[in-house]
Formats: sequence, C-alpha cells, structure tokens
Amino acid sequence: MSAKIPVGVLGATGAVGQKFIKLLEGHPWFEVTEVAASERTSGKPYREAVSWKQVTPIPESVQPLQVKPCTPDLKCRIVFSGLDANVAGQIEEDFALAGYVVLSNSKNHRMDEDVPLVIPEVNPEHLGLIPIQRQNRKSTGYIVTNANCTTMFLAMALGPIHKEFIIQKVFMVSMQAVSGAGYPGVPSLDILGNVIPYIGGEEEKVENETRKILGTFNGRSIDPADFQVSAQCNRVAVEDGHTESVSIKLANKATAAEIARLLRDYEGIPQKLRLPSAPERPYLVMDAQDRPQPRFDVNRCNGMATCVGRIRPCSILDFKLTLMGHNTVRGAAGASILNAELIKAQGLLE
Amino acid sequence: MSAKIPVGVLGATGAVGQKFIKLLEGHPWFEVTEVAASERTSGKPYREAVSWKQVTPIPESVQPLQVKPCTPDLKCRIVFSGLDANVAGQIEEDFALAGYVVLSNSKNHRMDEDVPLVIPEVNPEHLGLIPIQRQNRKSTGYIVTNANCTTMFLAMALGPIHKEFIIQKVFMVSMQAVSGAGYPGVPSLDILGNVIPYIGGEEEKVENETRKILGTFNGRSIDPADFQVSAQCNRVAVEDGHTESVSIKLANKATAAEIARLLRDYEGIPQKLRLPSAPERPYLVMDAQDRPQPRFDVNRCNGMATCVGRIRPCSILDFKLTLMGHNTVRGAAGASILNAELIKAQGLLE
Amino acid sequence: MSAKIPVGVLGATGAVGQKFIKLLEGHPWFEVTEVAASERTSGKPYREAVSWKQVTPIPESVQPLQVKPCTPDLKCRIVFSGLDANVAGQIEEDFALAGYVVLSNSKNHRMDEDVPLVIPEVNPEHLGLIPIQRQNRKSTGYIVTNANCTTMFLAMALGPIHKEFIIQKVFMVSMQAVSGAGYPGVPSLDILGNVIPYIGGEEEKVENETRKILGTFNGRSIDPADFQVSAQCNRVAVEDGHTESVSIKLANKATAAEIARLLRDYEGIPQKLRLPSAPERPYLVMDAQDRPQPRFDVNRCNGMATCVGRIRPCSILDFKLTLMGHNTVRGAAGASILNAELIKAQGLLE
Amino acid sequence: MSAKIPVGVLGATGAVGQKFIKLLEGHPWFEVTEVAASERTSGKPYREAVSWKQVTPIPESVQPLQVKPCTPDLKCRIVFSGLDANVAGQIEEDFALAGYVVLSNSKNHRMDEDVPLVIPEVNPEHLGLIPIQRQNRKSTGYIVTNANCTTMFLAMALGPIHKEFIIQKVFMVSMQAVSGAGYPGVPSLDILGNVIPYIGGEEEKVENETRKILGTFNGRSIDPADFQVSAQCNRVAVEDGHTESVSIKLANKATAAEIARLLRDYEGIPQKLRLPSAPERPYLVMDAQDRPQPRFDVNRCNGMATCVGRIRPCSILDFKLTLMGHNTVRGAAGASILNAELIKAQGLLE
Repeated sequence: MSAKIPVGVLGATGAVGQKFIKLLEGHPWFEVTEVAASERTSGKPYREAVSWKQVTPIPESVQPLQVKPCTPDLKCRIVFSGLDANVAGQIEEDFALAGYVVLSNSKNHRMDEDVPLVIPEVNPEHLGLIPIQRQNRKSTGYIVTNANCTTMFLAMALGPIHKEFIIQKVFMVSMQAVSGAGYPGVPSLDILGNVIPYIGGEEEKVENETRKILGTFNGRSIDPADFQVSAQCNRVAVEDGHTESVSIKLANKATAAEIARLLRDYEGIPQKLRLPSAPERPYLVMDAQDRPQPRFDVNRCNGMATCVGRIRPCSILDFKLTLMGHNTVRGAAGASILNAELIKAQGLLE
Repeated sequence: MSAKIPVGVLGATGAVGQKFIKLLEGHPWFEVTEVAASERTSGKPYREAVSWKQVTPIPESVQPLQVKPCTPDLKCRIVFSGLDANVAGQIEEDFALAGYVVLSNSKNHRMDEDVPLVIPEVNPEHLGLIPIQRQNRKSTGYIVTNANCTTMFLAMALGPIHKEFIIQKVFMVSMQAVSGAGYPGVPSLDILGNVIPYIGGEEEKVENETRKILGTFNGRSIDPADFQVSAQCNRVAVEDGHTESVSIKLANKATAAEIARLLRDYEGIPQKLRLPSAPERPYLVMDAQDRPQPRFDVNRCNGMATCVGRIRPCSILDFKLTLMGHNTVRGAAGASILNAELIKAQGLLE
Repeated sequence: MSAKIPVGVLGATGAVGQKFIKLLEGHPWFEVTEVAASERTSGKPYREAVSWKQVTPIPESVQPLQVKPCTPDLKCRIVFSGLDANVAGQIEEDFALAGYVVLSNSKNHRMDEDVPLVIPEVNPEHLGLIPIQRQNRKSTGYIVTNANCTTMFLAMALGPIHKEFIIQKVFMVSMQAVSGAGYPGVPSLDILGNVIPYIGGEEEKVENETRKILGTFNGRSIDPADFQVSAQCNRVAVEDGHTESVSIKLANKATAAEIARLLRDYEGIPQKLRLPSAPERPYLVMDAQDRPQPRFDVNRCNGMATCVGRIRPCSILDFKLTLMGHNTVRGAAGASILNAELIKAQGLLE
Repeated sequence: MSAKIPVGVLGATGAVGQKFIKLLEGHPWFEVTEVAASERTSGKPYREAVSWKQVTPIPESVQPLQVKPCTPDLKCRIVFSGLDANVAGQIEEDFALAGYVVLSNSKNHRMDEDVPLVIPEVNPEHLGLIPIQRQNRKSTGYIVTNANCTTMFLAMALGPIHKEFIIQKVFMVSMQAVSGAGYPGVPSLDILGNVIPYIGGEEEKVENETRKILGTFNGRSIDPADFQVSAQCNRVAVEDGHTESVSIKLANKATAAEIARLLRDYEGIPQKLRLPSAPERPYLVMDAQDRPQPRFDVNRCNGMATCVGRIRPCSILDFKLTLMGHNTVRGAAGASILNAELIKAQGLLE
C-alpha cells in the first residue's frame, strides 16, 4: 500500500503522455495508477497499447495498467493531460467539472480568462485564479496549464528580467526540435538536411502566452504584460531541445553582466520549497560564446532548467541572447509535473 | 584556340575554389586556364592536388592543369579568389598591383573604402569606385568583392525594398548550412542533431556589409545606408542553403502584397543585360506558407536567386519574412562570377 | 496536337507517382495525359490534389490535369503504377484485363509466374512472358514489373557477373534511404541519428526477386537462378540512395580487375538501342576506395546507373563490393519508364 | 586522503581521453590523479587544456589537474591510454617498461604475441599472457589491450556462442557512428545524408582481432580461433553506437531461441565478481523485430552491454543477427576500465 497521491495520465500512449509516465517514475509524491487514451487502445495493458519511444524501458508498475477511456471516472485526484488539442478542450473541462485537478499541457484552455498559465519560478501567484475558476464553472476541480514548449523558455528567461528591468519589446526566432511535433510528427523526408520556416499557430502562441505569463494578477484576472512580442518559428533537424535567438528592449538601464548575474543567482518558489522536480537553479547561464547547444546541454539539470548564453548588446533593441531548453521535459510534461508539485505544496489539493 | 577570356582561380583546391571551377565549366565568356593554391600542392596536376567534393566530376579541361603558387605571374586577365582570409589580404593586393582584375570572395578587402562590394542587381553603380581605387593604389588592376554568404541574401532582398520604401531597421537571425564553413569545416560531432548559436565574426559582417551595399556612391566613396542591422547567426545541420528569419521597419507605407510584387517583378542590370550567370528573375517569391526551404529550393534558378517567403506583418517592426539562398553559389563563387560578367559587360576589363 | 504516346499515372499524388511525373517531363516518346489517384482527390486539378515534394516545380502540362479515380477508363495506352501495395493488386489486373499495358512498380505481381520482372540490361528476354500472360488471363493488356528498389542494384550488378562467372552465393546488407518508404514514410524521430535494422518484407523481396530476375526463360516460364541470396536490410538517415555491402561466390575463376572491367565495358539492350532513359553506361565503376557514396553519387548518370566500388577479395566467399543507386529513380519510377521504352522499342505496344 | 588507487590518463584531452575521465568520475576503486597529453597543452590546468565535448561537465576534481607530458614519471600505478595510434606504440612500451600497468585502447599492441587482448566476459584467461610479457620484456609493468570498437560487439556476442556451438564462419557489415573517428574526426560535409563505405584499416582489425579474442591460451601464447571473418565497414550519420549486421555458421546444431537464451542468461567473470563497471547482464537480447537501434538503445545498461536482436535463420550460413553497442563506452574507454577492474580483482596489480 502506497502513501503516494494517485495520479492519472490522459493521452497516455502519445508522445507527451509517455514523457509524463517516464518522468513520474519513482516520483516521491505521485504515483501513476491510471492511464487513459483513445477508445482504440482501451482495455489493453499499457505495455501492449503503447508504441514506446523513450530511451528507458516502460516503468514496471505502469506496464500492466489497463488503458481506460478518457472519461472522468478514474481512481485518482490529479490528472496530467497530454491530449491532442482536437480533443483536449472538452475532456479537460469534463474532468475539472467532475472534481479532478487537471494539469494540462494542451493549448486549449491556456488563454481562458480564469485558467492559470503558470511557470512556478515566474508567476506562481497566478494560481490565485483557481478559486475564481471554481466559482465561475461551479466545479470542485480545476484546470491549470503550462506554456507551449517554445513560450516556456522565453517566458521563463524573461520573468526575472521583467521584474527587475521592465521589458518593452521582444524579438524571438526559434529553431525547434522535431520531438515538439509529437509522433509520428515530422516526416524525415521533410526535415533531413532542411529547415522548415513555419509551425502552424506557434508564433501566435508565443506572442500571446508570454504576455499572459508575465502579466499581473489583479485579484480577479490577469492583466497581460504591456509589451509586444514578435516571434518567428522554424523547425530544424534536432531530436530534442528548442533553441531561441532573442532580442529585448528594457525600460531600465542594465548591463549584460547584471542580467547574467540576475539569472544565475535567481531562486524561485520551487527552489525555495525544494519541489521534487525543480532544478537546483532555474537558469543555467553559460559563459562559452558558442553555448547553449541542444545536443550537449539539453539534459543538463535533468532537462528542467532554461539554458541562457551569449548575452550581448543589440544594435536595435538593448540585448541579444540565446535560450535553449528541453522541449518535452521543461517545455511539456516536466512543466505540468512541477505545476502539480507547486499546487500540492500550496495546499491547493485539499 | 579559344576566344574566351582566360581566368585563374586562387585557392583552387579549397571549397570555394572548387565551386568556382564547377560553375565556370562551359562558361560562354570565361575559361579556366590557371589554378593556383598553397605551396604544398604546387606542381601537381589539379586532379591529383584536389580532394574534389562536388557532385559532378572535375571538368575535363581543368583536370590536367598544373597547380601554381599564388603569385601574380599567371597567364590570365581575371583571377577569382577563394583564398582563406588569413592569406587573401596580401595576395589579392599583389595581384591587383600587378594588373589583374581580382574578383574576391574573401572578407579582407570588402570594407576597404575604395573597394566595391557589389551585388549587380542592387548596387552596380558602386563599380564607380574602380577608377578611384586604381588611382589610390597606383595600379592598373583592381579588386572587386562580393558579400559574405549570409549578408548576400539579406542585402539582395533588401535592395529593391530600400529603394522603394526606405528601410529603417533590420533584424536577422540566420540558420546557416555547414558548407559555409569550408572543408573540413564543421566536425560532424558538433552539428549532428544540434544547433551552434555562434559563427565567429559573422554577425559583424552582416551588420556592416549590408549597410555598405545599400549605401550611396557619392562620386568618391560610399555613404553607408542610414539604418541599423541586428544580426544573430546560427549553424544548423543543413548541407547547402542559408535560411534567414528577418524583420524590417520601413519609412514609407507598404503592404505585404506590395513587397511581394515589387520583388517578384524586379529586374536588375544582370537581367536586362542577360548576363550568362544571372537568374531569369533575381527573387523567387514563394506563396506556400512553409517555403522557402533549403533542401527543396536551394537549387532553384541554378542557385542564383534569393528565395523569399512568408512576408507578413510584424508586431514590433513592420514586416517579417523568410529568406533563403545557396550559400556557396549565389552566396560565394556564383556572386564573384556574376560580378565579373557585369565588369566585362560594362567595359571595365579594358 | 502531340504525336507522343499518351500515358497515365496511377497513384499520381504519391511519392512514386510524383517521381513518374517528374521523370516523364519532356520525355521524347511519352506524354502524361491522365493522372489517377484515390477517390479523396478525384476531380481536383493535379496541382491542388498533390502535396508536391520534388525539387523541381510540377510540370506545366500536368498541373491542370483533373485527377481521376483508378478505374480502367483512362484515355491512354500505357499506365505507370505507383500504387500502394494494399490496392495495386486488383487495380493493375483490372487495367490489364481492359487492355492497358501496365508498368508496375508495386510488389503485388512481381512474383506471378506469368508476369515479367525485368531489368532491360539484364533480362530483356523475360518479356517473352507477355504472350503467355495474355493467353492465361485472356486479356489484350498485360503487366510488366520492375524490381524492388533494393533488389534493383543487386540484381543489376550481378547480371553481367552471373553470365560470365556464374554466381553461387550472395550476401547483401543494405543501408536504405528514407525516400524508399514513401511519404510521410519514416518519422524523423525514428531515424535522426539512428539506424533501423528492419524493413518489413524487404529481405524476402531481395532474396526472391533477385533469383527470378537472374533466372532463365524456358519458353513458358522462368526457372529461378540456382543460387542462394541472404539479405539484411537497414534504414539510415539518407534522403536518396540505397547503399549495399555485398559479398559473392563465383563458380568460375575471376579477378577483381576482371569484374571491374566487365561491368565498366558492359552494354545492354537499352544502351545499344539508345533508349531515351538509358544511362550511357549501366554501371559506374568507381576507383576511389571510399566510393560510391549516396550524397555525392546518387544523381550521377541521371540516377539511372548502378554505382559499383570497392571490388576486393572476401575471406569467406570470393569478392566483396559496394553498390549504390538512386532508389526512387533507377530503383522505382525510372525503372518502369525504361521498361516501357524497351517494350515500345520491341514492338510490344502493338 | 583517498584510499582509492591513483590512475593516470594518457591522451587525456582527446575524445577517448575525455571519455576515460567522464567514466572514472566517482569510480569506487580508481581516482584520476594524473592527466597527460601532447607537449602543446602541457602545464595548463586540464579545464583550460581541453575542448570538452561530453554532455556532463568536467569532473570537479580533474578540472585543476595540471596536464603533464606523456613520459613515465606520473604518480600513479595504472595508466589508461587513449593515445593516437601514431604515438601510442612507443609511449605505452615506455610506461610498461617503467613499471606501469597500461590499459590501452590503441591498436598498436593489440596483436603483439605477448599482449592480452581481453574482453572480461569472453577471454579473461588471456591475462595469463601477463607474466610471459613481463619476462619477455624484462619489465615489471605490462600492457593489456581492449578490442577495436567494432570488433568489440562482434567478439563479445560471439564468445558464448563459440563456446557452445563452435563458430565456423562470420560475416559482418558495420554501420559505425561518427564518434568512433574521434574529434574533429568526420567532417559534417562528408556524412550528413550520406554513407561512407570505407574506414581505413577497420576491416582488417575486425577480422584479426576477433580470431585472437576467441582464440585459446595454450599456456605460452594464443592460438587464434579457427574460423574466417569477413568484414565490411561503413560510416553513417549516427552520433554514438555501432550497428552490425552479422551472419554466422555453426558446427553444432542450434536454434535461434537457444542462441537467444544462451546470451540472455550468460554470466561472465565480471558479473560473478560484480566488478563496478560490469553491466548486470552482458547481453541485452531484444525481442522487438526492429531493435536494437543506436539512438534508443545505446545508453541501456550504462552503455556497457552488447545489444542483440533479430536472431533468425540465414539462407547461406546458419543465423543472421543484429548487434549494437556504445562505441566509445563498451567499445573504448569503458572496456579499458573493465579490464583494469578485472586485473585488480585477480590480484594482478601486486
């Protein structure tokens, strides 16, 4: 008999679902007791239902779990959703209405007015939307979302900078890994030796989500941050790790060294509370002028930090910098899990 | 006996030198009669001196040519220089002083006050520096340079836009092919499944060269264009073709459709003169929202056009767009050859 | 009004279908007048129905053709089939029964007793099965097939060697390009930085087809060649070009130099008849010890030759060698087209 | 004060040297106290001398170590040699003569009559050559070598099979990762989207070393195994992990299931002695028909096992199978370390 909190994974056989199961293996607080997916695989043991694409084996305890349909009668308190956007909207609402705490990695509810879009190191106070959401929707459960995988590293890096120096403009060009498109995702014929300068809907997500995350909770809703973001998103032949070339304009005077120090020394709530999935430091500031690089740095800090490098003056705005992070860990499943840890640590599971 | 103009290639065994030899095969005006390289290979027939890395065989007529040292006693009027920057400076000056017309792909003299940095479709009038250079340096020969491979597609695309709408600010993030680094160049262990967010000196070149190319010839020198360029350069796992995510601010009102039409309909001097290496149209404006892409588009128009796509509004400046071109053809050897053709067509070989 | 023979393409929107259309552009004998595909795209003009993945644009004359269903009422004499194996069997039979000459790239009928599996340079006499097939099936039309893309280069290279020295055993390990799996085909997450040591059904095809192709037409049927083939098939991160490490045992004495000379000097029927798609020489025998290589050699001889290198002694059988060829040109669409040319040249279209 | 055995690394800044340092971090028995490399870097602290290419940071304790020249006056008992073959021969002899135990990953002494070439799970009894080597060379130290990275997985997999069923013939075609060529190693322009069908000297190494490793120690020397090996070696665009398509002939009757069980259940000396670097099981036999694959399996069992899959009948010899392993761990530095552990466990350090 385990004293851990039972959790379920929605969309458990997909790319994000698999990552949830992998990252939750041996988690000190949570235990995967339910796996749910599309009707097609319902009833099978997980090990047969899934086409497992992780570099470590399926956790022993999850292998025999029977895959259930995504209906709100799972035996657990928390569900992690790695559902496709075309079904996530309704299913996540149904679970919340039925009393579940839904940690969603899907885009559907991120911009809902009463749904928190949270990076624990940056805007934990946005969890203040939870009681409002419950009241609005007359439900005991609720939905908490994490950022899109490209937004994540941008908004996370900008968080402390915005607090200290006030951001006024943000340019971002991304070079995104193929794992961000799920499985089967990007055909090899499209990406070998290639760059695809378009990812549907991604630029809008980055531009909107970043302003919500860095926005202010006014006690009832979020006032989005008062700056513009211009995003251009490209796909490259990288397995894991999104790289971002960023340029920012600040209201307050700063030096590159001050920004580097600010990020290097930063401690957020997850670090202070020593949440199990929190990286020791949220930002890995790298001095070598050719870092970060996805192949060499993507798994640093268990894939949960945002790597920052090349902070230098910009001839148009104020500073240029390079960001990189693990798009399916900190940029997806790991983010949801850290959100769940924050929720528990703040007593919001009661 | 050939009626063609004899030309030499400096650095003939290197990556750019090989591309010169490949592109000059069957050229209607020029014939490679001299190949020069480092002392190490001097005296050997070219076919033995070179580690040939092109997808077509070494041209028959070049195979037996004896490799000579890079000293100004070659039997030809024009030399194309694919020399490494660490030796190009002095050697190119020596050849010019000795009366040769030097078409250089090296960075050394690009920013010299009296050396034209020319894209025939954009700033052919900069060849007006030639008599000034000759006078300054008391030489009958002279040096004409072409842009860095990343600058090329940016400056080329901006040329007509600047004339029509006046550019005020330019952001550019590049995703550059490995062939831009020569051979052996980028180790496979560094780039497989990776992005390298740094290319030494590249960002400065893009920022400075673009302003010179789009600058004004005032009769004695070039007044650089009056706008700022902010460049960030990345290496990706692509064989050929640099992709650039660009954002621009314009002084005059424009629409995306106007910019697309302007580029699509543009004819420069090379097109009007029907220079042998000129693409039929200098800009290949693509409508599909996910183009251009290096793997599928790099050889369109014989690699001599700049591919343009995704012209759309920018939330900070005015327009975002994607550029792509063949970095070793239009971005290197092909650019020098087109410059030579322009020089001949304008009677500057006399 | 064209004097060319009208031809149709079945499965015209798929990967092989596109290659047929690309290779038939400007063909001196054939003109694509009909494009047929699944019901889903029926009725649309080809340019809208297809997701075009070739590096050259859709041929002008094919762009407006209306896509029709794959039923035998197309206005043409010849159909090229790039159909998926799950539908090709019945459709191809229907067309043959209705009087069409069907050139099939699909696996379904390759091993039928009365269907020729032909490489024009190797076993043109197998076309002798055509009258037998017509009689058997009481049809005016007939089906002629070409080899699987991996079989192709093996059987083609072995052809002249078998005639001269009699093959007794063949080992082959393939390293196959992703384009061999069609589109979307191999997910990028499966192949970036990877080798997949399994391709469903491929090893059996290589083992069986090779023996049929090198078999003897006895006037009524084909006696398969009397040797064993052992095949192992791997997928690698190459866009185009299958590479094969081969080892062979011969009944007659030979030297590596004799084998090289035999292949280098070989002329088949397509060369003697100067068929439009025939390579000048069917075998490109390369001397450099590290060739052939797919990236550098796949488009040599318009992708229609088999590249051969590293012929050297084997410590177990007699000789080791490396083969390489373009899997979607000579290994697929180009093979069908060459077969059609042979058929026409031999008066079998009457 | 540490009770661990002090060890040195020769060629410490190179690719194999770095891997030694990474794998020895936190080793329970050994501690890196000396790093030696070419004169060029001598005197610098290791962190400055090295261009570190591992995905984890340089171990804290090694960072400040002063790089010394490769002369036998290091303060340690054991040296691990990752030296280039062009210098390894003499330097390793010098160290052995001076009393050091030299664990060499270089090719130079592998085939010396009195030098053991050891895989602890397969031929630990070959360490019986040590006293003979000492006597021959009148030295207190000695050299022990491990197999070439491609030989390793072949010889390791064949070991138990040979003991049980007696091998008579072996075919092997390799698809080797770029990390096997060191750094900078294979240029990206040579391998992106490519296969290189030649690796200098590799085929001979596989053919000779395999027979020595599976040979018999007769009390004075090794009688090589009495079978032939035919090897063909290819380079592919994989970062880490050599894949091998193998076919074998056996003297005794066997089934695929028996071979699978034999390998799956096998325990060697390292497993019985629970040597620190030994994998729990030396062979990871995989049931999925498309495994092993380097990207997904290379780090299984800490990169110290040989992965085996697709055991199936061969139409020419008896069985075909696919092998895969981590070429710089079990195939290089990890192999040397395991050899050192075996030596210590058998009291041969006294």
